[in-house]
Amino acid sequence: MNFMLYASQQRSNNYFFIRFIHSSLVNNQHQYFYIFISMKKLLFLLAALPIIATAQNNEDSAFIKRLSDDILANGKAYDLLYQLTKNVGGRLAGSPQFAQAVKWGKATMDGIGADKVYLQECMIPHWVRGKGDKVTITGINNRPVNIALDALALGNSLGNGKTVTADVIAVKDFAELEKRKDEIKGKIVFYNYPFNPTYVVPGRAYGESGIYRHSGASRAAKYGAVAVVIRSLTEATDNNPHTGAMQYDSVYAKIPAAALGLKDADRLWKETQSSVVKLSVTMHGKQLSDTIGYNVIAELKGSTFPDEFITVGGHLDSWDVNEGAHDDGAGVVHTIEVLRALQAAGYHPKHSIRFVLFANEENGLRGGSKYAEVAKGKNEKHIFALESDEGGFTPRGFGFGVSPAQYQKVLTWQSLLKPYGGGDFANGGGGADIGPLARTFKTPVAGLTPDNQRYFDIHHARSDVFENVNKRELLLGAVNMAALIYLVDKYGL
Amino acid sequence: MNFMLYASQQRSNNYFFIRFIHSSLVNNQHQYFYIFISMKKLLFLLAALPIIATAQNNEDSAFIKRLSDDILANGKAYDLLYQLTKNVGGRLAGSPQFAQAVKWGKATMDGIGADKVYLQECMIPHWVRGKGDKVTITGINNRPVNIALDALALGNSLGNGKTVTADVIAVKDFAELEKRKDEIKGKIVFYNYPFNPTYVVPGRAYGESGIYRHSGASRAAKYGAVAVVIRSLTEATDNNPHTGAMQYDSVYAKIPAAALGLKDADRLWKETQSSVVKLSVTMHGKQLSDTIGYNVIAELKGSTFPDEFITVGGHLDSWDVNEGAHDDGAGVVHTIEVLRALQAAGYHPKHSIRFVLFANEENGLRGGSKYAEVAKGKNEKHIFALESDEGGFTPRGFGFGVSPAQYQKVLTWQSLLKPYGGGDFANGGGGADIGPLARTFKTPVAGLTPDNQRYFDIHHARSDVFENVNKRELLLGAVNMAALIYLVDKYGL
Repeated sequence: MNFMLYASQQRSNNYFFIRFIHSSLVNNQHQYFYIFISMKKLLFLLAALPIIATAQNNEDSAFIKRLSDDILANGKAYDLLYQLTKNVGGRLAGSPQFAQAVKWGKATMDGIGADKVYLQECMIPHWVRGKGDKVTITGINNRPVNIALDALALGNSLGNGKTVTADVIAVKDFAELEKRKDEIKGKIVFYNYPFNPTYVVPGRAYGESGIYRHSGASRAAKYGAVAVVIRSLTEATDNNPHTGAMQYDSVYAKIPAAALGLKDADRLWKETQSSVVKLSVTMHGKQLSDTIGYNVIAELKGSTFPDEFITVGGHLDSWDVNEGAHDDGAGVVHTIEVLRALQAAGYHPKHSIRFVLFANEENGLRGGSKYAEVAKGKNEKHIFALESDEGGFTPRGFGFGVSPAQYQKVLTWQSLLKPYGGGDFANGGGGADIGPLARTFKTPVAGLTPDNQRYFDIHHARSDVFENVNKRELLLGAVNMAALIYLVDKYGL
Repeated sequence: MNFMLYASQQRSNNYFFIRFIHSSLVNNQHQYFYIFISMKKLLFLLAALPIIATAQNNEDSAFIKRLSDDILANGKAYDLLYQLTKNVGGRLAGSPQFAQAVKWGKATMDGIGADKVYLQECMIPHWVRGKGDKVTITGINNRPVNIALDALALGNSLGNGKTVTADVIAVKDFAELEKRKDEIKGKIVFYNYPFNPTYVVPGRAYGESGIYRHSGASRAAKYGAVAVVIRSLTEATDNNPHTGAMQYDSVYAKIPAAALGLKDADRLWKETQSSVVKLSVTMHGKQLSDTIGYNVIAELKGSTFPDEFITVGGHLDSWDVNEGAHDDGAGVVHTIEVLRALQAAGYHPKHSIRFVLFANEENGLRGGSKYAEVAKGKNEKHIFALESDEGGFTPRGFGFGVSPAQYQKVLTWQSLLKPYGGGDFANGGGGADIGPLARTFKTPVAGLTPDNQRYFDIHHARSDVFENVNKRELLLGAVNMAALIYLVDKYGL
C-alpha cells in the first residue's frame, strides 16, 4: 500500500472530499480514492489529533521514565548476574551447571512472581570438552622444541584424547587452502584469517571470519588434513583463545579443531613463514547422547488479548570455559529484569507476555526450536519477540526484523527510547533463539543492539566473566527492553 | 534572521524572481526580498549544486575512511597509553612523575614529527598527599572499636599529619547541615549525598554532588567542624574512594577533608543512624610552593592561513593515586594520535594546528590558562579548539560551544561522523583546558563525548588504570576527533 495524500480538497455542501492518489497505475491512469467527511468532523479531528498524540506521548514517556527510574535505582539484574555467574558459572548444555541454571532460573522467576512459571522440556546436545587438551610446537626445522600454545577445542569438535603430530600448513584463508590443496595430506592446517580491525562494527569481522571456525575442519579434512587450528575470532589484546560452535561435514574425517589466542597465533604464523613447524595437538572433545533440558518460562496473562503472545528472552546456556556473563547471562537477567520492572510498576499487559530463558543456543539452537515447535503445535498467535544476546553493554538501539509497515510504526517510538540510549533503530535484526519463531509464524522480531566494541574481546573466551560487566550498562539495556515491550504491548505491531 | 523561501517564482524576460519572505512584520506587513537571476544561470546552479555537494561529500567521506582505517589498524594511541600509564604512572602537577610525563610527551611528539614541538612554561600548583592517611571508626556509643575505612584525602586539602578525633554528624546534604548547624561545633561532618543513579547521563549526578567535594569542608568549618568526610562521587560497585579537587574558603579553618568508598560510606551512614560514632581522621596533605611545569605543544603550520590556529588537546596531569588512564591519558594519546594520523595521511592543513598536552587541569587549570594568556599576548587568531577529557570510551559525538550559525554549519558534518559513532552532536560543550581560550577570544570549542556510563566508576579512583581502557574504544575516539579537525580545517567555522 502506498497512498499519498493528494493536495486537493474540494468543498461541497459542507463536505470535504479528501482525494488520495494511489501510486500504482491501472490502464496507465492513477487510481483515486475519496474520503467524504463533514467539515465539522474534519475540523474536530484535525484539532484533536495532535492533542491525542501529545497526551499519549506524555503518558508513554512518563511510564517509561518510571520504568527507568525503578530499574536504575532498584534493578536486580546485576545481583542476579552475580548469582548466575558465580554460584552457577559456565553452563554448557547437558552439563550439571546447566541443570543448576534451570533450577536457578525457575526459582528466581518464581520469586518475582508471574501468572505462571514453568519448564518446557526439550532435548539438548551434550558435548564435553574433557580435560588435558593441549597444542604444542614440538619441532622447528626438525629441531625438537616444546612450546605450549594457549588453545581451546572448538565446540562439537572431537579429539577423544588422541595426540596428532604433524607439520603445519599455515594459510590466510580458504583461497590459499584451495591453492595448496596438494600439500595438505597428513598435515595440520592453521587458518590465520584476521579479524578485520577496520570495521567500525566488529560484528562484521565476526561474520567474515566465523566460517573458518564453523567449517574449517571439514574443508581441510577434505584434502587429508589430520587436525586444524584457527586464529581466534577476536581482536583482543590478550592471548585468550575463543571457542564456539563448529560443525563437521559427515563426508570427511572428523579431525580435531582448536582455536589459538592471538599472541600465539601471531607466533605460530611468524614461525611458519620461515620454518617447517611441527605441531602436536591433543584434544579430548566427545559428543555424548542428547539429554533432557528445559526452556524456563514465566508468563503474564494478557487482559485484552490473552491468546496473543509477546516473547522476550535470552539464552540460559553458555560455553564451559567462562561464566557466560555477557553471553548470555546479560540476556537472561535482562529478561528477568523486564518481568520484575513491569510487575513493580503494576503493569497489566493487554497481550500475554512470555519471559523465556532458552535452553540451548550455543551448540544447537534447541531451545528456540522447541519453543517455536510447541507454539506451532498449539497454533498460538505470536505478535512480537525480542531477544538480548549481544552482551550487557550500553544499549544503542534495536535491530528489527519486521515488515516495512511495521517498521514505520516502530519508528514512531524512536524518540521515546532515545533518552535512554536505545534510539538507534535498524531495519534488520532479531536473535538466534527467536529465529525459529520468526520463521514459523513470520513473527516480527527484534534484538537489543548494545555498543559492541568490547564484545568480541571476551566472546566465548575465559574472560567472559561477571567482572567485565558494568552495572549501569547492564541495567540500561533492561530499561530499553522494558520500554519497547511496553510500547509493543500497548500499541501492537 | 529567519527567512523562508516563499513558493513564488515569476518568470519574466527569462529572469526568475525568487521571493524571500522575512518572518518579521513591519507595519503589519511581511518584508519581501527578491533575488533576480537569469534562467540559464539558475538552471546551471540548480543542476551543479547537488553535484558539487556530493563530490565534496564523497571526497570527505573517503578521506575520513582513510583516517579511520589507518587509526583502527595502525593507531599508536593504545601503546602510547601503556607507556604513559605504566612507565610514567600517576602524574600530579608538581610531582617527579609529572616532569617525566612532560619529557615523554615531548619525545613522543618529536618522534612522530611536526613542524615544531616545544614546551610552554607555566607555574603549576604543588600539592602533596603524603603518606599514612587514615580514617578509622574508633568508637560506637562510647564502646571503643577500630574499624578502618578506605579513604582518600581530597586534592588541595590540608592535614599535616595531625589526628583529629571527634563524634560524627552525618548529613544528607547542605540543607540538613544548615538545619543542624548548632550541633556541628567540634564534630566531624559526614556528607552522604548520593550520586543519583536514575540519571541516564551520569555527568548530571556528578554535577549535583560535586559541590560537596569542592565546598563541603569550608561549609562545615563555618559552623566549627574539625574535619569532613564525603561519600565519593561515584556509583561504583567497589569500595574505592574517589579523590578530586576541593577548595578552602579562606575565611574559615582549613580542616581535613577525605572521601570514603561507597561500601564504607554506607556502613558509616548506617552506624550513625542508630549510634553515636566517633571517627579518627589523620591526613598528611600539604600545599607546597608553586613550581614550574609545561604545556607540551606540537604544531603543523597552515598552508593557507598559517596565522589562524586550531587547537586539539587533553591534559597531561592526573591524580596521584592511579595511572590517569581515562583521565586524561586518553585525551593525551587521542591528541597525539590525531597528529600521527594526519601526518600519516600526508595531510597539509590550511590552518595551523596545535596539538597541546596541557600541564595542569586537575587542581588549578594552570595549563589552559597559560595557553590562552600567551595566545592573547601574541594576539593570535584561534578559530577552533577541541578537547578530549571525558575518557577513552566508545565515542558518541561532540558537544559544541559555538554560535547558532556555526552550529548549523557543524550539523552539515554530522552524517560524515555518524558511521564512526561520533554523530551525536549537542549544542553546548567544550573542555576545561580550552575554556580560557573560549573566554579570551570567544573561540568556538568542542569536547569529545564518549559513552560515559563507566566513567565515574573509575574517575579519580585507584581503578583508573590502563587495564580499564579498551583499545578499540580508545582508537575510535581518535578517529572521530581526526575527522572533525579535518572538517574544521577544510571548511572553517
